[in-house]
Amino acid sequence: MNKTNLKGVAASLVMMSATLASSVPAFAAWEALPEVAPAPADNPTTEAKVALGKMLFMDPRFSSTGTVSCNSCHNVMEGGDDSRTFSMGVHGKTGGRNAPTVWNSAFHSVQFWDGRADLLEDQAKGPVTNPVEMGVTEIEQAMDKVRAIPGYKPYFDKAFGKDSMTVVNAAKAVGAFERTLITPNSPYDKYVKGDKKAMTAQQVSGMETFAAAGCTSCHSGAAFNGPKMAFGQGFYTKFPTFADNAYNKKYDLSADKGREEATGKAADAHMFRVPTLRNITDTAPYFHNGSVNDLSEAVALMAKTQLNKDLSDKEVKDIVAFLAALTGEYPEIVMPRLPATSGHSLIAD
Amino acid sequence: MNKTNLKGVAASLVMMSATLASSVPAFAAWEALPEVAPAPADNPTTEAKVALGKMLFMDPRFSSTGTVSCNSCHNVMEGGDDSRTFSMGVHGKTGGRNAPTVWNSAFHSVQFWDGRADLLEDQAKGPVTNPVEMGVTEIEQAMDKVRAIPGYKPYFDKAFGKDSMTVVNAAKAVGAFERTLITPNSPYDKYVKGDKKAMTAQQVSGMETFAAAGCTSCHSGAAFNGPKMAFGQGFYTKFPTFADNAYNKKYDLSADKGREEATGKAADAHMFRVPTLRNITDTAPYFHNGSVNDLSEAVALMAKTQLNKDLSDKEVKDIVAFLAALTGEYPEIVMPRLPATSGHSLIAD
Repeated sequence: MNKTNLKGVAASLVMMSATLASSVPAFAAWEALPEVAPAPADNPTTEAKVALGKMLFMDPRFSSTGTVSCNSCHNVMEGGDDSRTFSMGVHGKTGGRNAPTVWNSAFHSVQFWDGRADLLEDQAKGPVTNPVEMGVTEIEQAMDKVRAIPGYKPYFDKAFGKDSMTVVNAAKAVGAFERTLITPNSPYDKYVKGDKKAMTAQQVSGMETFAAAGCTSCHSGAAFNGPKMAFGQGFYTKFPTFADNAYNKKYDLSADKGREEATGKAADAHMFRVPTLRNITDTAPYFHNGSVNDLSEAVALMAKTQLNKDLSDKEVKDIVAFLAALTGEYPEIVMPRLPATSGHSLIAD
Repeated sequence: MNKTNLKGVAASLVMMSATLASSVPAFAAWEALPEVAPAPADNPTTEAKVALGKMLFMDPRFSSTGTVSCNSCHNVMEGGDDSRTFSMGVHGKTGGRNAPTVWNSAFHSVQFWDGRADLLEDQAKGPVTNPVEMGVTEIEQAMDKVRAIPGYKPYFDKAFGKDSMTVVNAAKAVGAFERTLITPNSPYDKYVKGDKKAMTAQQVSGMETFAAAGCTSCHSGAAFNGPKMAFGQGFYTKFPTFADNAYNKKYDLSADKGREEATGKAADAHMFRVPTLRNITDTAPYFHNGSVNDLSEAVALMAKTQLNKDLSDKEVKDIVAFLAALTGEYPEIVMPRLPATSGHSLIAD
């Protein structure tokens, strides 16, 4: 664990004790989003990797049909997702879990709802060979397409050196690009940095309710996804924790066994990675099964299923107002020019 | 017909007489691409319309599944198309004609392969309600979604004034954006403006062969899609003109009745709008049925089916080299931020 992580954990501990000690946590417990995301030791973020990664992220030609890029389901022009319950991949196929936002995904210490990938680099490879996402049989087939596009070579050369057109490096480039997809300077960030006018009175009230109700027991830290942890070490919670209620019946939350489906361990049943709440106004519908298409309902549901609390309408409204203060500044992204295959197409499906 | 158009027709007449008089046309007959595309009188291009049009063009939420935007099939990060034989719309459905490039589509006087729309504004509405493209039943349903996104209102206000969120204005905005999608300064453009080093010797040879063979009888003008004409007046040709050959059998070119399917007139059988050759290296596969995935094959096929000529391998190679000189400079496009629907999603499919 590096220095930054230790500092993060310390801050989280401060927040947690604050939460335990008082219904209104100390100001110091609230963290602003860092301006730079942490990167693994073997893949420091460089401009050359980011430029290449952006191209690969946007390029649909590596999917079997040539229609699905990373950006199709993690649309950076929107909330980093696709507004759908379940994403639609090649040939109109759909999966079984809601697409998590790519924005600030760099602040997760594990990836996917079930944490089955340690790093963004590992995650990036998953959808390529998922039959309901990009639908490629073997990942090397997708890489063969990358290698068949002459214009990609100079970008790999610059990012990784000669003879570097490999799956590992492609994934590293995508990971590096994704680490630039962060949204600082939300009203909340400005508020916790001292600008008391950055949030409305209702948002401040919602912030207090959010902590007092116990939401911060999971949604802590700068990204509201739990304490900072080393890459590969996940912060999970059982969802639903309290299963015997109308919400669970209505939205069938327990149908998905969560992390148990990845590990095969009964102890992991219904365990899910705690998702970030950053930009949550822009990422409906909500939850692993995308079953709730209303943020107010999602807040009330969480209080009931995780804390066994019935929030008042005012409490829900205040928390929703506070959550809106977590929507930050999306950086400007220039569309990459995807290098052509002169005079022929790679798409056969 | 405005002044610009008259000038264009005059230039085209010069070229055509040059082509008839000599196998190597006079230098003056070749036109560079204008820096600005013509706009219809009732929709002058403005910055505010272009900004809005770019957002609408990129926004997939108006399709029934929330997965298909204009850019899905007319990808401006690529050659303005999708590298596919037939585009893939909602639920993985496919159509029956190859997606024409959106780049320089502003220089066409009619839209679609069969010219069934006069203007880009008319074209823009077509795919929305096409069941195999965006799959919306009534176009007002798509417009209801636009109206349900609060962040779009200020953009309509700025572009068209108050209470202007209509299908007509949305289409005008998309048309205005598309008129900015032009690619001047190709090697060919530089060459015809006097930079003799802008094209290689082979490209110059190919240019001469292109004219001498008769390709310019259809592929004339700045966009290589025929003489300039008033909006709504199309420049069509019969494809294939010479149908009794191996190419037609192999690629089934005559199966599509072209403009007859739009007009119901037998005289329009197999008539197609002459497509631009600009950036043709980046728009494979080729022809209305996307059946030919090799530019050399496409060139040899055209000579046979349209001019009843068998080009030598050298002639084909030279013409392909020349066509590569028609690939221009793609302008930089900043990704629009698509306004969110706070705390809920519009996508129900």
